[in-house]
Amino acid sequence: MMKKLLLLLFFFSALGATAQQKIGLVIHGGAGTIKKENMTPEQDKEYRQKLQEALTAGYAVLDEGGTSLEAVTTAVQILETSPLFNAGRGAVFTHDGKNELDAAIMDGNTGLAGAVAAVSHIKSPILAAQAVMLHSPHVMLVGEGAEQFAREQGLEMVEPEYFFDQRRFEQLKRVQEREKEQGSLYSPNQPGSYQGKDFHFEDYKFGTVGCVAVDEYGNVAAGTSTGGMTNKRYGRVGDVPIIGAGTYADNETCAVSATGHGEYFIRNVVAYDIAALMKYEDLSLEEAAEKVVMEKLVEKGGSGGVIAIDREGNIAMPFNSEGMFRGYMKEDGEPHVFIYKGE
Amino acid sequence: MMKKLLLLLFFFSALGATAQQKIGLVIHGGAGTIKKENMTPEQDKEYRQKLQEALTAGYAVLDEGGTSLEAVTTAVQILETSPLFNAGRGAVFTHDGKNELDAAIMDGNTGLAGAVAAVSHIKSPILAAQAVMLHSPHVMLVGEGAEQFAREQGLEMVEPEYFFDQRRFEQLKRVQEREKEQGSLYSPNQPGSYQGKDFHFEDYKFGTVGCVAVDEYGNVAAGTSTGGMTNKRYGRVGDVPIIGAGTYADNETCAVSATGHGEYFIRNVVAYDIAALMKYEDLSLEEAAEKVVMEKLVEKGGSGGVIAIDREGNIAMPFNSEGMFRGYMKEDGEPHVFIYKGE
Repeated sequence: MMKKLLLLLFFFSALGATAQQKIGLVIHGGAGTIKKENMTPEQDKEYRQKLQEALTAGYAVLDEGGTSLEAVTTAVQILETSPLFNAGRGAVFTHDGKNELDAAIMDGNTGLAGAVAAVSHIKSPILAAQAVMLHSPHVMLVGEGAEQFAREQGLEMVEPEYFFDQRRFEQLKRVQEREKEQGSLYSPNQPGSYQGKDFHFEDYKFGTVGCVAVDEYGNVAAGTSTGGMTNKRYGRVGDVPIIGAGTYADNETCAVSATGHGEYFIRNVVAYDIAALMKYEDLSLEEAAEKVVMEKLVEKGGSGGVIAIDREGNIAMPFNSEGMFRGYMKEDGEPHVFIYKGE
Repeated sequence: MMKKLLLLLFFFSALGATAQQKIGLVIHGGAGTIKKENMTPEQDKEYRQKLQEALTAGYAVLDEGGTSLEAVTTAVQILETSPLFNAGRGAVFTHDGKNELDAAIMDGNTGLAGAVAAVSHIKSPILAAQAVMLHSPHVMLVGEGAEQFAREQGLEMVEPEYFFDQRRFEQLKRVQEREKEQGSLYSPNQPGSYQGKDFHFEDYKFGTVGCVAVDEYGNVAAGTSTGGMTNKRYGRVGDVPIIGAGTYADNETCAVSATGHGEYFIRNVVAYDIAALMKYEDLSLEEAAEKVVMEKLVEKGGSGGVIAIDREGNIAMPFNSEGMFRGYMKEDGEPHVFIYKGE
């Protein structure tokens, strides 16, 4: 009798946990001056298809009982592999015509995190970030050291040509031509050349990719991967691999992945600020994300957006730029993809 | 008559501003297993003298009407130049017998920040961080790129031998010997080898240096400089150059510089969390710093401490390790230096 009761109790509590726990996944492919009138119908379709592919694959992991970490790396890898986005293949070029990639991942359950920055030979920076998290005592590895670690971990290494994309290369040449005429981002005395002032960041292309997810165990995770800024110099590292700025996850609050003008996101600790507003000011996920992206960042002049999810499956995708490649899938199992404001 | 009234008003308000604004400066030279019984009286004296020298020099800048940024770089440079501390000269060695230095600075008035990581030829990493903040559009530069930038900025470059310190080198050899016997921090399957688990971090030596200050204009600033961990590999970067983790400053809240087991400080966004608790939960500087270092970090197993100051000149210096090299100077113009708990 007692045994039966216990069994019944077990079934009910298991049922309760499953019924309460909603799975969900949100992705982004970068924010910026993305206007409908500048996109051909073919381009529009191509982006939507790739976003949908990443969404569907990531969601399938969750649907089959996989973890949010597995879902995040699955979705991000698909976007890294596509030359449409500024991450992995298709990353923008540095001033010296190289690709220097950054990525980070964080596990909202354990609070562990991993990041790599300024790497040039790792096929999937998000997998390298995950390896740092799981198989090293560190959070952040940079440059050749990070590559050596990835190699020893058996990750796939590639020649720099793998990342080459003709369109990105022409973008570099265009930016460099214009800088010759109008002065460089790095010229002293060039108005707008320093952080805190305005420069035409839009010209330097966004296109960072990221994913946040919650799994059936109620654990959230966040991952972000990027090639950074076109024509960047001096080993510049943006917000993506900075835990608390471009990437953050904590079951207590939310998982966040950011995209935009990285320097502003670092100085305003954007990802963690959203979590802090939830934790300390009792804002909802939507309120907190909205406040940070649409008020605080706008006041400071920081352009971009974030995607965020909490363990209840609430999501937010605010951006203060013209557009943001983005999409989500929730319990209904339908992929919802957007590029411009509202559509 | 009107003119005289206005003049009078001007004098009173100027007086008010000066009378209200207290200057102050706090420094640290690292936290860790620093026990009185392990120090000779000579060592004790040597550390106290150097801390006092840095305090006095930094405070003099403030006293003469200089800015908090100038005071911070002045004090940190003195500690960087001393082989007693793990920053600049006297930095710990990497696995390959090199010195890889990280530093960051943040201006609480403008919200601007600068950081360098994994640099080996820049004499004063804190000056390089400042140059990134003032003369680049970026916040963070790493590796050779950061060094190229520093060179172009006319900063003093040195051969790697400059950083060499026999004591630090012997420390590396000791750690490597022990790792041969007991297994490395990096061995998979080595218990305690991964982040989140305990390894004998204390063996890897703290000694990071930092300074926070408030000037007569009511502006706060924070700066931190470090050589990282003995025997570190793979281009590991700790919390020091991560804005929000090891270094943060905002006039609205406070300036913070941290020292300790960097991975924990990154994952818990320690410096910004103190600011967030003041901003969102109305905690005082002391309460916020205490809560983060003595409660939140302790719960997670993160060892170390912080120094913090707000624009009213309130200070906090909590640490959860055995000791922390630290000191402060306030309006009375007396240097107060401490090493162990309470003394």
